[in-house]
Formats: sequence, structure tokens, C-alpha cells
Amino acid sequence: MPLRVDADRMQADFEALSSFGATSDGGVARTTFSEPHLAVRAWLLERGRAAGLETRVDSATNHSVLLPTTRPGGRTLMLGSHLDSVRHGGRYDGALGVLCALEVVRSVKDADLDLPVTLEAVDFTDEEGTLIGLLGSWAMAGILTREILAAPRGGRELLVSELERMGLTETGLLEARRAPETLAGYLELHIEQGPVLERAGVDIGVVTGIIGSASFSVVFEGDARHAGTTPMDARRDAAVGASAFVLGVRETVITRFPGCVATVGNIETEPGSFNVVPGRALLRLECRSLDRAEQDALEQALTARAHAEAERYGLGVTVERLGRWEPEPTDEEIRAAFEKAATELGLTSLRMPSGAGHDAQALAAITRSGMVFVPSVGGVSHDPSELTRWEDCVNGANVLLNATVELARAAA
Amino acid sequence: MPLRVDADRMQADFEALSSFGATSDGGVARTTFSEPHLAVRAWLLERGRAAGLETRVDSATNHSVLLPTTRPGGRTLMLGSHLDSVRHGGRYDGALGVLCALEVVRSVKDADLDLPVTLEAVDFTDEEGTLIGLLGSWAMAGILTREILAAPRGGRELLVSELERMGLTETGLLEARRAPETLAGYLELHIEQGPVLERAGVDIGVVTGIIGSASFSVVFEGDARHAGTTPMDARRDAAVGASAFVLGVRETVITRFPGCVATVGNIETEPGSFNVVPGRALLRLECRSLDRAEQDALEQALTARAHAEAERYGLGVTVERLGRWEPEPTDEEIRAAFEKAATELGLTSLRMPSGAGHDAQALAAITRSGMVFVPSVGGVSHDPSELTRWEDCVNGANVLLNATVELARAAA
Repeated sequence: MPLRVDADRMQADFEALSSFGATSDGGVARTTFSEPHLAVRAWLLERGRAAGLETRVDSATNHSVLLPTTRPGGRTLMLGSHLDSVRHGGRYDGALGVLCALEVVRSVKDADLDLPVTLEAVDFTDEEGTLIGLLGSWAMAGILTREILAAPRGGRELLVSELERMGLTETGLLEARRAPETLAGYLELHIEQGPVLERAGVDIGVVTGIIGSASFSVVFEGDARHAGTTPMDARRDAAVGASAFVLGVRETVITRFPGCVATVGNIETEPGSFNVVPGRALLRLECRSLDRAEQDALEQALTARAHAEAERYGLGVTVERLGRWEPEPTDEEIRAAFEKAATELGLTSLRMPSGAGHDAQALAAITRSGMVFVPSVGGVSHDPSELTRWEDCVNGANVLLNATVELARAAA
Repeated sequence: MPLRVDADRMQADFEALSSFGATSDGGVARTTFSEPHLAVRAWLLERGRAAGLETRVDSATNHSVLLPTTRPGGRTLMLGSHLDSVRHGGRYDGALGVLCALEVVRSVKDADLDLPVTLEAVDFTDEEGTLIGLLGSWAMAGILTREILAAPRGGRELLVSELERMGLTETGLLEARRAPETLAGYLELHIEQGPVLERAGVDIGVVTGIIGSASFSVVFEGDARHAGTTPMDARRDAAVGASAFVLGVRETVITRFPGCVATVGNIETEPGSFNVVPGRALLRLECRSLDRAEQDALEQALTARAHAEAERYGLGVTVERLGRWEPEPTDEEIRAAFEKAATELGLTSLRMPSGAGHDAQALAAITRSGMVFVPSVGGVSHDPSELTRWEDCVNGANVLLNATVELARAAA
């Protein structure tokens, strides 16, 4: 007979949580260390204490609610996600995972189970990247470096001033690392942020791995010429080469890299007038794969395509890689525990990769890591209209609860 | 034995003229009513008076240098172009035509030819469009309207303040119209601004007509979605549709409308991030033809292509025409006079359309109008590196001189 969370308590808390930074269109604005972000983190600790749980804030301001084990020397099984949001985001991304982690820990306490590991529900700092992205989980996993701190996504100036304002230090961030031998694993529930589960009519996604990605700047160079006086066959039109490349990226992925994605997210043309043939086109390219070797091959194929299209239209081209994040497979024992829990609850599940980055990717550096997805209506995310049906939220929490108990018992 | 201009005098004047608004990179900056523009116009009148010619400034500030005929009731044969430039332009566009017009009138005076028409060399106001574009020639041709003045290209505020600063009135602009019965024609020399003459190795271009054009806003609409979590087959990517359209525009013109041009001069994508599939793509489209019916067909074909590509990729699309300028054929008698002059001077010529707009297009509304082109090195224009070999400048001036005399005598 599977365990079940207190769905009413969880729903009341979800409504309370969603009010922090609520926007008039049903979304939330809780960027890192903003007033509503600080307030919601304080609320989380207060809800933990109200349930008779311990709380902890580490030197990277990761906020935890804990149920300590009575077993001497017992390790810690972590559950978590993040309460920060993108500038104008939805109510579910990250927040649902933190709330489910809290609810699982509370439910275990209510059921008075004597588990051989400590349970810790964590709200990681700055997952969305107001400052750095995955800041708290990178710090806890020991993969945050001075180099990353020197060139943060939100700019060095903002990072320095925000750390000072919060009373934090860079050394403190680097010291937030947990010792791997103290950990029994990391579990994260998250909304899918894509349409796969909804399309398949499946309740639960068991994440096989978190996809790697690389981002590139691609620049085509031609000649800016008078659009009235330059015949079609005398042109070196950078927009034509760029357009052929956009279609080529799509074709390459569909025909040769099924399961991968690649996106030209932005095109800029110069000088950009009606009456001048574009002399330059600047593209933002991103591609993602679940496998390192496949990611290498995909990057090579797209780079080759850029050069082929440039040659076809007599253009110059430069392709510059701006960053790469390696793919991380999840732990097989955790996947199996999620699947078993789903089956016992009468829920359908499927194995799928995560196309987005998550704190679970960072934690994989120091402990076994796994994720469970719940369906996103219309696949929408990072938008105020982000929605997961409440029934799916509860299903996910129940799967997380039962998998947690099973893994905790086996980790003795 | 053909007449010849005073090439040394013309060269000295070209150097002097090019110094007004000269930029350090060899170009000029002479936007309408800027200080160097006002100064070069004063210089033009001064050069006319120094040659014993009359001068005139009309209520649209078109500046003229005149050699009146002694014949009672004689009509006026006009020659001209413009001394204003784009913001950062070259030394030849417009300025060479005005200088050649001045040199032709001086040469006729020097040769003491008793022509039955008045010759008038005109510098038209604001051809390049700091304020309106073709302002002076539209005013003189009587095709400037209150509607055009209400929504000028440079903005209504700038027009109002500049007219006031110059002591001009809108009524004055509209009253600059010349009576058609007083005119014997209009001749304009201009640099080609394209590569056709240079590629063909031909000295002189005889313009068959000034091409028409239309400009459009084309907007593709898809869904902005997470670039990591949205599979390739679940996307409605506006950049993909836009790219297919850019290639489709090129293919349509090359295969079905030879001699026409069409250009997507700008592409903008929204939201424009690496990790979001573009939800909107906004394009600036322009197309040009020498023939009204062909222009209609071209516009229809490109609009149909936009809809076809939108349908292919499951996108919405809107195509909005922002403006249309009708093509204007030149006068056959003037074309023949240019060709005859070229042949007598031992120069090669070819008939070709003008892909750019010119004052000659406006003058066609009130008198027969014709143009002669000289080669542009590399086809470059509207750029400081704009260049026409000096020998070609002199050849053009000599063709303009001999055609002027022939047409003037025949216009008696």
C-alpha cells in the first residue's frame, strides 16, 4: 500500500507560496535576492519549523528543512529544487519541486517512519541565473570556481554588489561544498517544461539524463550594396546565407540527430535598411544532446553546414563556441525507484531526457542524482501561463515520497 | 566634331566641391540644410556668377545657374541633380551631376552658341531624404502634396523646425511648381551606383527608365518555446519560416522575374535568446521593377510565397505594403541624343534601367526626362569609398554637353 502526501496541506501551501512575487497575469517575479525571493525563503523555513523540522542555511544561502535520522553516522538523502524564478516566470518552475520536497519530509515525519538516513529538503540559490545560474547547487557540489565567479552570467558588478548586500563572500560560496561520503543521493521533482508527457498522455516522466548543450555565435559576411542597383547575380547577401543555414540546422538535426535539438534563437542583419543588401548576419545558435560523443558530432555537423552555406553563396563565415555544458546521466537505481513508485500508485510513466538544465545536473558531481517530471500543459514554461494540473502535482509528490522512502531504506 | 567641356576647370571645381562636408575617410556628410550643405549651395551660385551666368533660388530652395536664351518666349532645358548627401556618403552621388550640369552650361556660354532655349543647371533640395526625399524635384514637378508634408520620412517635427529655421513655408514649397509649357526637357547625369557598366566594360549608360519599387513589412508568427525541452517536430519556429521566405524571394526573382530585384534588408527575431525558439520574425522586404504590370505580378508572387512558407511551417503571416513608387520610363528622343553623342565621342554605351530613384523620376511628371550614367568602381555607393574614375566623369560631361546642344537646337 503506497504512502500518500497530505494533498490539502500541500495545496494550501502552494497558494501561499505562489503569492510571493505574484504578478497580475498569474505569474511570479522572484529573481535571486529580490524582496519576494528573500521573503519566500523565510516562509519555507517557517513552514518547516511549524512542522517540527530543523532548518539550515549554508554559506551559499541554500535553504534547507531537515528531518534528522536517529541512526548514528547516518547519511543524508537530499530532495530539492529552487524558489527563484526568471524575471517574469510561472508559478511551477522550481517552486513545485521545493514544495514537494518539503511535503515529502513532512509526510515521512507524520508517518513516524524510522528511516536510516536524514532527509533534507533544499531550496538552491539562483538556479535561474540572475547572478550565475545553478549558483547554489554548483557551490554545494564543489564545481563552482573562481573563474566562474570572475565572469558570471549577470555581470561581475551585479554579483559583487549583491554578495556584499547579502553579507556573503566568494570564499563562503566555495566552502559550501558537501562531502560526498555524507550523502545518500539527490532527488528532484520538476515540471517537464515541454510537451512530451502531455502528448503521450502519461502521468510521470522518469528522467534518464540531463541534456548537454553548447551555444555559438555564427556570423555571415557579405557585401552591403544598394538594393536597387545591384543585380541578383552580383550580390553577396549575408541574410541569404544565414537563412540557408537556419533551414540547414533544422534539416541536419531532423535527418541525422533524432532526439537532439538545435535552435537559431536570434538573427540580426546589418545595416538593416529596406534598400541595402545585408552585409552581415549575426546568429545565436544552440544545440543539445544527451550524449557527449553525439554532442561533439552535432556541433561538428552544424559548423560544417555553416561553412557549406557560406561557400554556396560566396560569403565569409565565423563560428565561435561561447560555452558548453556536458550531459549528465541520472542514476539507474533512482530511475527504477521512481518507476516502481509510479506503478504502485497506478500511474503511467515513461523514461525521457531533460532538455533543460537543473540543479540535479550539478549534484551528480558528488552523489547519485535523479529526477522526476510532471506534465506541463501545452509544454509552456518560463511564462506566466505556465501550468501543471493539480492532480499531476499531487501524483508527482506521491511518487517522490514513495521513491524517497524506498531509497532511504535501501541506503542504510 | 563633338564639343568638349573644360576638363581641368571641372576637376578643380570637383576638388573644391568635395571639400564641403568632407570626412576623414574620403567621403562627405552633407545632409539637407546642414552647414556644409548650405555652404556648397552658396559656392555653386558663386561659381555660376563667376562664369557670367544668372542664378535663381526658388521657394523650395532649389538652386539654379542659368544661361538665358535671346529667343523671345524660348523654353527652358533643365540639367541637374543634387548636392545633398546621405549621412555618411561619397563624393560623387548627386554632386557629379550638378557639377556636370554647371560645366555644360559654362561650356555652351564659352562656345558662344546661340541656342533657342534657356539652359538651367539645378541643384535640387533634399534628394536623399533627410527631410522628405526628392523634396525639391517633387515641389518643382507639382507632385508634392500636403499629405506628403504631413508624414515626411525624417519625421514631421524635424520638417517643421527646419522649414522655420530656413525661413521657408509649406505653401512656398507647393508653389515652386513650374508650368510644363515653359520646359523643353530635363537631363540628369548620375553615377550608376551599381556594377553593370564596370562589368560590361562600357563607358556610358543610357537610362531606359527609373525603376518602380514597393516596400513591405512581413511578419511570421509562431510559438516562443523552451529551446531545450521542445522537440523539433513540436515547434512553430518563426525564424524557420522567415528563412524559407528569404530564400524563396531570391528564387522567385531569379527564376520568374529576370531584370527585377527583391531584397529582405532586415530580419528581427523575438524574443531573441539562445534558449528560446523564435516566436516572431519581422522582415523588411523591398522589390523593384521597370514595368507597372510586372511590378504588380512581382508583388503578388512574393506575397503568395510568404503565405506558402507560413503554411509549410504551420505559422501565421501578415504582409503589409508600406509604400509604392511607380516606374517612370525615360524619353526616347533623349535616349537617342545620349547615344548619338556617345558614338560621336568614340565612347561605348548601353541601355539600362536605373535601379535607384532620382530627381529625373519626379521631373517626368511635367516634361520629357532622361538620364545618363557613368560607371561606379565596384558598384559601391552611399559609402565613403564611392568612386568614379575621373576619365569616366569627363566622358559623361561630354556626352551631356553634346546631347544638350542637339536637344536644345531641335527644341526651337
